[in-house]
Amino acid sequence: MKKNFLMLVSCMFLLNMTLMAQNPTLETIHQRKSVRSFTDQPVSIENLTTIVKAGMAAPTGMNRQPWEFLVIQDREIMTKLSQDLPYAKMLKDAQAAIVVIGNPEKSTYWYLDCSAATQNILLAAESLGLGAVWTLAYPSEERMNTITTALSIPPPYKPLCLIPIGYPKGPQTPKNKWIEAKMHLNKW
Amino acid sequence: MKKNFLMLVSCMFLLNMTLMAQNPTLETIHQRKSVRSFTDQPVSIENLTTIVKAGMAAPTGMNRQPWEFLVIQDREIMTKLSQDLPYAKMLKDAQAAIVVIGNPEKSTYWYLDCSAATQNILLAAESLGLGAVWTLAYPSEERMNTITTALSIPPPYKPLCLIPIGYPKGPQTPKNKWIEAKMHLNKW
Repeated sequence: MKKNFLMLVSCMFLLNMTLMAQNPTLETIHQRKSVRSFTDQPVSIENLTTIVKAGMAAPTGMNRQPWEFLVIQDREIMTKLSQDLPYAKMLKDAQAAIVVIGNPEKSTYWYLDCSAATQNILLAAESLGLGAVWTLAYPSEERMNTITTALSIPPPYKPLCLIPIGYPKGPQTPKNKWIEAKMHLNKW
Repeated sequence: MKKNFLMLVSCMFLLNMTLMAQNPTLETIHQRKSVRSFTDQPVSIENLTTIVKAGMAAPTGMNRQPWEFLVIQDREIMTKLSQDLPYAKMLKDAQAAIVVIGNPEKSTYWYLDCSAATQNILLAAESLGLGAVWTLAYPSEERMNTITTALSIPPPYKPLCLIPIGYPKGPQTPKNKWIEAKMHLNKW
C-alpha cells in the first residue's frame, strides 16, 4: 500500500511538472496553421464571441481601438462571398467567418492595430481546436469593395481581412519558418 | 493512512483538472499589457531567441515571410535610441529590445505580416513573464530613419516597430477593451 501510494504521488508530481513546464501559449503560436478545409461541425456563437473578445484584447496605437468585428454565420452570405472573392473559396465549407474592420477616422494606421487583432483571433481559434485563415481584403480596393457591399459596411469603415473558421478537416500541419540568419544581434 | 492517500489523490486530480480546463493561450492574450517600466533583471538570449522564433511563426501573405528581426542588448545603442525616438523613453530601462523589420521587395503589404509577427512577440514575452510594448516606427518616415541609421539597416528594409523588453516593474494590469456593440452579426 505504501509503495503504491509513493508511486502514484511520484507519477502525479511528474505529470504536474510536465504540464507546468510546457508553455501552452508558445505551443499555440507554433501549432497555428492556415486551415482551408473544414468539417461540417458547427461553430458555436459562444466560441465565436470568445474569439472576437481575444481580437479586442490586442494593443492599439494611443489606445484608440479603431476596430469593429463582423461575425458571419449566414450560409447564403458565405456562399456569395466565396464566389465573389478570388482567394476565399474555402468560405463555402467554413462554418463561420469573422471580418476585421478598421476605422481610418479613428487612426491613420488602423491596419496595424487590426492586424494585431487578427493574429489574436487566429491564435484564439487554434487554442479552441478550431482552424482559421487570414484572407486579405486591405489593401486591395477591389476585395474591400466586394466585402463592404456584401455586408453593408458603411463608410468610413474598411475591412482588413475575412477569416473563415471551422473545425479542421484532415491532418493539417504548421510550417516551420524559423531561419536563424533572419535574427540579427545589435546591428545589422 | 488510507484517508490521507485518498485526500491527496483528490487534491491532485482537482489541480490537474483545473490546469487542463483553463485555456492558457486565451489567458495570455487577455493578460498581455503594454509594459513601459522594467526591473534591472537581465533577459537571457535564450528567452529573446524563443520570442523571435514566436515572431517567425506568424502567417504571411503567400508565405513570403518578408521579415527580419534585430535583437538589441547593447546598452549604448538602447540609450541613444531612447534619446532620439519620441515615444521610446522606456528603452533606457529596458534590458533588451526587438526591432521587427520588413522587406517591401518581398511583399508590398509586409507591414501586415510584420504586425502579426509583432503580436506573436508581445504574447510570447507575456507568456515568459516578461513585459514589452509596441513602439511605432512605420509609417513615420522620421522614426524609421532614426532607427535604420542607428542600427545600420540597409535598403530596402524598413522597421515596423521597436519593442523594449524586460521584467515588469511594479503591478501592471491589462485594459479591458471588450465592447459588445463592436461585434456585429451577419450584416452591419
